[in-house]
Amino acid sequence: MSAGPSLEDIRAAARRIYPYIHRTPVMTCAALDEMAGARLFFKCENFQKTGSFKMRGASNAIFLLPEETAARGVVTHSSGNHAAAVARTARERGIPAWIVMPTNAPRTKRIAVEGYGGQVTECAPTLESRESEMQRIRERTGATLIHPYNDERVIAGQGTAALELLEDVRDLDAPDLDAIIAPVSGGGLLSGTAITAKSQQRPLRVFGAEPQNADDAFRSLASGRLEPAADAYTIADGLRATLSSLTLSILNERVDAIGLVTESEIPWAMRMVWERMKIIIEPSSAVPVAALLLHRLPAERLRVGVILSGGNLDFDHLPFGG
Amino acid sequence: MSAGPSLEDIRAAARRIYPYIHRTPVMTCAALDEMAGARLFFKCENFQKTGSFKMRGASNAIFLLPEETAARGVVTHSSGNHAAAVARTARERGIPAWIVMPTNAPRTKRIAVEGYGGQVTECAPTLESRESEMQRIRERTGATLIHPYNDERVIAGQGTAALELLEDVRDLDAPDLDAIIAPVSGGGLLSGTAITAKSQQRPLRVFGAEPQNADDAFRSLASGRLEPAADAYTIADGLRATLSSLTLSILNERVDAIGLVTESEIPWAMRMVWERMKIIIEPSSAVPVAALLLHRLPAERLRVGVILSGGNLDFDHLPFGG
Repeated sequence: MSAGPSLEDIRAAARRIYPYIHRTPVMTCAALDEMAGARLFFKCENFQKTGSFKMRGASNAIFLLPEETAARGVVTHSSGNHAAAVARTARERGIPAWIVMPTNAPRTKRIAVEGYGGQVTECAPTLESRESEMQRIRERTGATLIHPYNDERVIAGQGTAALELLEDVRDLDAPDLDAIIAPVSGGGLLSGTAITAKSQQRPLRVFGAEPQNADDAFRSLASGRLEPAADAYTIADGLRATLSSLTLSILNERVDAIGLVTESEIPWAMRMVWERMKIIIEPSSAVPVAALLLHRLPAERLRVGVILSGGNLDFDHLPFGG
Repeated sequence: MSAGPSLEDIRAAARRIYPYIHRTPVMTCAALDEMAGARLFFKCENFQKTGSFKMRGASNAIFLLPEETAARGVVTHSSGNHAAAVARTARERGIPAWIVMPTNAPRTKRIAVEGYGGQVTECAPTLESRESEMQRIRERTGATLIHPYNDERVIAGQGTAALELLEDVRDLDAPDLDAIIAPVSGGGLLSGTAITAKSQQRPLRVFGAEPQNADDAFRSLASGRLEPAADAYTIADGLRATLSSLTLSILNERVDAIGLVTESEIPWAMRMVWERMKIIIEPSSAVPVAALLLHRLPAERLRVGVILSGGNLDFDHLPFGG
């Protein structure tokens, strides 16, 4: 048995989360196709509720909880998209959500999570403090941890984006995709995507993309074991986590290549999507786009699904235009 | 007989231009609905070819030309979205397009028009110089003028956006719209929109929106005659033209109200759409959004179609984020 959820788990997740998420559109762009030398089909999870694909995994995990367990609430640590998705989904289910955030998290992110009904608990900005604060909450409340990626239920939820993308490309009366690409951080999205892609009758090639400054997945997949974080700054703030043993084992069997991009290439590709497609994507979503436009992956002449993971960013601090 | 094209002309335009334009999607946004106190249906012409609705009028006018006339080419003056649409459509028809631009037009706009195959001819930045340069080109080449709005063929084309919007809202199995809104500059888009809206079995309310700094349509509709341009700067660079006698007579009979917004409200509303809807709109498109969000029009509790006219702007000079 392979590690991780099966295609059937992903299909069940799709049925389960259907009422709680948007079926996001698929867009195309002739100008970007020309640059990439490939035919690109963009799955617009930037239009997803809370602005990212994280709603998929969070809602699958939270709606899978038995009634009594769910009633005690959920807890997670994150200052980003996963926190917003957990908070919003918990509110949808009518249960409390505790979100552990470091004291140095941006005020705007805290406000966003509170806006979705999450109860923010502060901790010092260290791993130890975060873990002990989470432990305290769990002991006090009995809340269930919803990990952002080291969780089969979450991975199954993330795999539904690729499922919809494949269906919608078929509905366009177009030939099936040859390949699919997603950014990789902790590996939840790419794991779900890869399971969906490799379970098709004609399996797709699976590509990941990562900032050079956060290339632990690239190194871990090369060595076959968990490599430490690069610990350098990246503008792609959603891609700073590292693989877990679960996501490594899923990806190890299924990923064909990881494309790396530099820090300056990320805002360049982000701006290209803003200008040409007229949609807002966040820096993390620009990483796979950059890898394709700059030919860092063997994608030429292929029909490639691109998961645009989210559209949340701070408009007071844009990497261009000032 | 009323002035301007009929609903039948607009329907014929829709059939004519179908192969040359995108059928743009309709989007909704719960957060903006809540602010407006209305149910908003956004027609995303920012996703249109060349990034604006101008493709509709340009392609209707250009594909209506008899073969022999068309062969001599088309000419227009503009440094904005209409120029790009004329250049691209002319290339599609295989005929030359001359675009008269003032010497002080931004280099990026000139490059965009040339990228679509337009032949840019420079003139001094005065009305006289522009007119005489256009006259010279017409005498030399026999090219047909494609005016940005003082032209029934162009107005008929612009009215197709509202037609699609009404159809697509019906396809959503939703009740028909109560009202529709578009920005007003020379009045071509609002004229076509108003003719479509007022020809329905249950006529819609028709709203326009304008910057206070360019409120000539507001004043002209109040007085019933063409009032001079306000001649103040507005960030909504697409809204600096003034009504013609043709568009005034169309709008005079059909527009229920014009909402005015200040200069600071325009980037505020633009940012709201970028942040909440994750789509890029240009300042001109933010003007109707601002008027709705700020309750400058009697739109509360209505189902309102909003024509997002375009998504072209200079990402090197954004009004926020620097």
